[in-house]
Amino acid sequence: MNRRLLASLAVAACALSLEGRAMAQAPNTAIAEAKIVRIAELEIDPAQLDRYTAAVKEEMEISVRTEPGVLGIYCVAEKDNPSKLRFFEIYADEAAYQAHIQSPHFRKYYETTKTMITSRKLIETTPVLLAAKP
Amino acid sequence: MNRRLLASLAVAACALSLEGRAMAQAPNTAIAEAKIVRIAELEIDPAQLDRYTAAVKEEMEISVRTEPGVLGIYCVAEKDNPSKLRFFEIYADEAAYQAHIQSPHFRKYYETTKTMITSRKLIETTPVLLAAKP
Repeated sequence: MNRRLLASLAVAACALSLEGRAMAQAPNTAIAEAKIVRIAELEIDPAQLDRYTAAVKEEMEISVRTEPGVLGIYCVAEKDNPSKLRFFEIYADEAAYQAHIQSPHFRKYYETTKTMITSRKLIETTPVLLAAKP
Repeated sequence: MNRRLLASLAVAACALSLEGRAMAQAPNTAIAEAKIVRIAELEIDPAQLDRYTAAVKEEMEISVRTEPGVLGIYCVAEKDNPSKLRFFEIYADEAAYQAHIQSPHFRKYYETTKTMITSRKLIETTPVLLAAKP
């Protein structure tokens, strides 16, 4: 490899590296441009809460790791009532949401947990601003 | 610059670049480890909704861009009632949340919008799982 080629490679690799750093300072662009946010409020049978939580965490982790259009899924419990869970779900677009609910991991979660959920409220929303660090 | 030094630089820059790419595949670690999530449900005077939205978007954007511990703030409107807004806010820890509500941009937002908000419900939560792409 000659000296000029090595120098070019070094410059190109530096440029790539700097681009990575600049992106780390900017907002999370994919989330900022997401089209679909769904909110769910679930109440879980307290006797089955641990089993429900294990199942939903597995499903959430797989979804965000493997589905390109599943940008974020957050699950929190109400501090005053740990069996009341609230979900905030961010999808790139309607196609990503439809692909998600047809996925094997979502179907498995749904079948495993349907008898553990005692009430369910789903809220469709329109994003106003979705601001997150990358 | 000699050939060996150039080669070393190229390898080092490539390694930095690859590290950046590997991070882009992993989950958003800061959000996964966040300790504080707050949910707010606000109803806005419909006549002042545009002004409220402009003020809160400015405040959210500055917070996520400039405060290290403000990891994400999401605002969505209920599809059936656009003057009902829901916020989902992710802070690294309690200190980050306290710093946020003392910040000049939050104080300005609070003063500007307090007469536009007709009802407010705040929900403290315990994170179960916060899964997001970086």
